[in-house]
Amino acid sequence: MTCELCHGDGGVVLWQNGLCRVVSVDEPGLPGFLRVILNRHAREMTDLDEGDRAAFMAVVFGVEAHARRCLEPDKMNLASLGNLTPHLHWHVIPRWRDDRHFPGPVWAPARHDAPVPAGRVAACAAMTSSLAAALGPVR
Amino acid sequence: MTCELCHGDGGVVLWQNGLCRVVSVDEPGLPGFLRVILNRHAREMTDLDEGDRAAFMAVVFGVEAHARRCLEPDKMNLASLGNLTPHLHWHVIPRWRDDRHFPGPVWAPARHDAPVPAGRVAACAAMTSSLAAALGPVR
Repeated sequence: MTCELCHGDGGVVLWQNGLCRVVSVDEPGLPGFLRVILNRHAREMTDLDEGDRAAFMAVVFGVEAHARRCLEPDKMNLASLGNLTPHLHWHVIPRWRDDRHFPGPVWAPARHDAPVPAGRVAACAAMTSSLAAALGPVR
Repeated sequence: MTCELCHGDGGVVLWQNGLCRVVSVDEPGLPGFLRVILNRHAREMTDLDEGDRAAFMAVVFGVEAHARRCLEPDKMNLASLGNLTPHLHWHVIPRWRDDRHFPGPVWAPARHDAPVPAGRVAACAAMTSSLAAALGPVR
């Protein structure tokens, strides 16, 4: 079976280094949803050596820090699941009390379908635009 | 509002150090589900300094490594969500192709309710029993 994250970017690439890339993904109702994807194929965090694991997590936390600075969300959610696509990738998801799934995880059924406030959509766009500059030092 | 993870253990404590504790939680249909909970109250990973963040993640990855060694699950899932309980805690969840939610996240609706194989229940009990010895060096 071909791996979609080995053979494709998995989203719009916002930043990358030799180890991993950060992509934005278009998840309806969840603006600002980013993923940090390992470039090479590996299945679990404990398949990486300690150096790569720490470097990969530093990018995840760098993305979280940038999203928090730009968006001041009510909570950040981080997850490495990969049941369907067992190629290491982290979901980095800003959450708001009024988002569709809150306080449930984004994978739980939506609780309502109210539109996302326009200001938040704009702030998320600005966050993704400024991510590469913010992550510069992690490289 | 009182924080339930400041005022309670959050499960059966299997191991702890000055920073965090590992607890087993009784999630129906999901044997081997563990949580790593920060002892003090903090909301986001990026609220921790780098040293505590790395030490906390080392425990999360130590738990993952132990669960994999003991259980050989089809996938490991890791998540820090905390929308309902914004006190840092990681879900460390061994997943199997035949578990109730697979390949969905455990927070998605169950796909079936077949019983967990008895051998897996026993293996998970052995995994939790041996966790403290396995994590010893992390302390």
